[in-house]
Amino acid sequence: MRKIYFLLFFLFISFASLAQVVSEKEHLIVMQLTDGDTDVHKKFIRQLNNIMTAAPNAKIEVVTQGMGIDLLKTQQNPYEKELGLLVNKGVQFVICENTLRQREMKKDQFLTLAGFVPSAILEIVMKQEAGWIYIKAGD
Amino acid sequence: MRKIYFLLFFLFISFASLAQVVSEKEHLIVMQLTDGDTDVHKKFIRQLNNIMTAAPNAKIEVVTQGMGIDLLKTQQNPYEKELGLLVNKGVQFVICENTLRQREMKKDQFLTLAGFVPSAILEIVMKQEAGWIYIKAGD
Amino acid sequence: MRKIYFLLFFLFISFASLAQVVSEKEHLIVMQLTDGDTDVHKKFIRQLNNIMTAAPNAKIEVVTQGMGIDLLKTQQNPYEKELGLLVNKGVQFVICENTLRQREMKKDQFLTLAGFVPSAILEIVMKQEAGWIYIKAGD
Repeated sequence: MRKIYFLLFFLFISFASLAQVVSEKEHLIVMQLTDGDTDVHKKFIRQLNNIMTAAPNAKIEVVTQGMGIDLLKTQQNPYEKELGLLVNKGVQFVICENTLRQREMKKDQFLTLAGFVPSAILEIVMKQEAGWIYIKAGD
Repeated sequence: MRKIYFLLFFLFISFASLAQVVSEKEHLIVMQLTDGDTDVHKKFIRQLNNIMTAAPNAKIEVVTQGMGIDLLKTQQNPYEKELGLLVNKGVQFVICENTLRQREMKKDQFLTLAGFVPSAILEIVMKQEAGWIYIKAGD
Repeated sequence: MRKIYFLLFFLFISFASLAQVVSEKEHLIVMQLTDGDTDVHKKFIRQLNNIMTAAPNAKIEVVTQGMGIDLLKTQQNPYEKELGLLVNKGVQFVICENTLRQREMKKDQFLTLAGFVPSAILEIVMKQEAGWIYIKAGD
């Protein structure tokens, strides 16, 4: 009898956690972040977590440019831990080198989890050409 | 003679209304709305009407998330009638359930013409994977 | 000996200028501009130049609508010369006729380098259907 209760409990837990999974497929998603606002960043991190819950096998590349690169700066970054957890779930973060030059910032001002691309726009273009799906983040 | 005037008048009217049709094809368009501003909503509704005039056989799915879901709320919605007319023309409106949870809102606070999707982003991703064309609405 | 210095200098220069070229391919990019802010326009023009440097064989069509069409107005346009240079590099600029009607503006209020499309959204949709890659400009 106990075994059955255990089994039912196990099934319930499985169902509860599966309930939010919408797709088991490997979706390839490239997201563009241009906004430097901390509130926008907070919502964006929540959104990334929501996507990885709904589609646990998705791969997301977040391409930051303009003020959006502030999401990944080392100094006073309230989201460092959460960004690390997202990397473990399959999210990659990259920074636009054109923006670095323009804003006169250096690579060592950014979290080591972040990568770099020469041109944010061209990165998004080439990812789409390779079949990735584009989403513009922020309001 | 009167018949000819009538015919010319009829042809003129037909031409005038046809003049704005750009494409007779069935275009599949998925539009993302994240903005809660009433002025943005007003422009957006005008834009949806413009698209359906230019491409009367288009199918549009409007995916709302964040503050964008306010476009579809029941209370004090100045656009209820226009939204209904757009549905008749082939526009579908859906609301992100992740946003509902986050903003602690319930499905019965929204117009019955609106549908629901578990995750706005994943909906837009899957629509694009199925060949729909993505447009981000708002400024 | 002098020849070698010259050769080394030439190689250095070539490398320095090549360093920024990311792709020699012909990328087809359709960019949507809805924002009327002059600062946004300034950043956008810089961005267009960055893309054409990174991908010199790219073709870009900039579709302006709403307040975004102000980028191309004749009167007090600080970017007229830069826009002309961009056209020479392979960038095309078009204006939405729906916006013209809505804002009660006339075609002769815009730079002659700009073209016109009946509907901005439908233009972007049809370009994407023809294989062009979509990027939403602005923040």
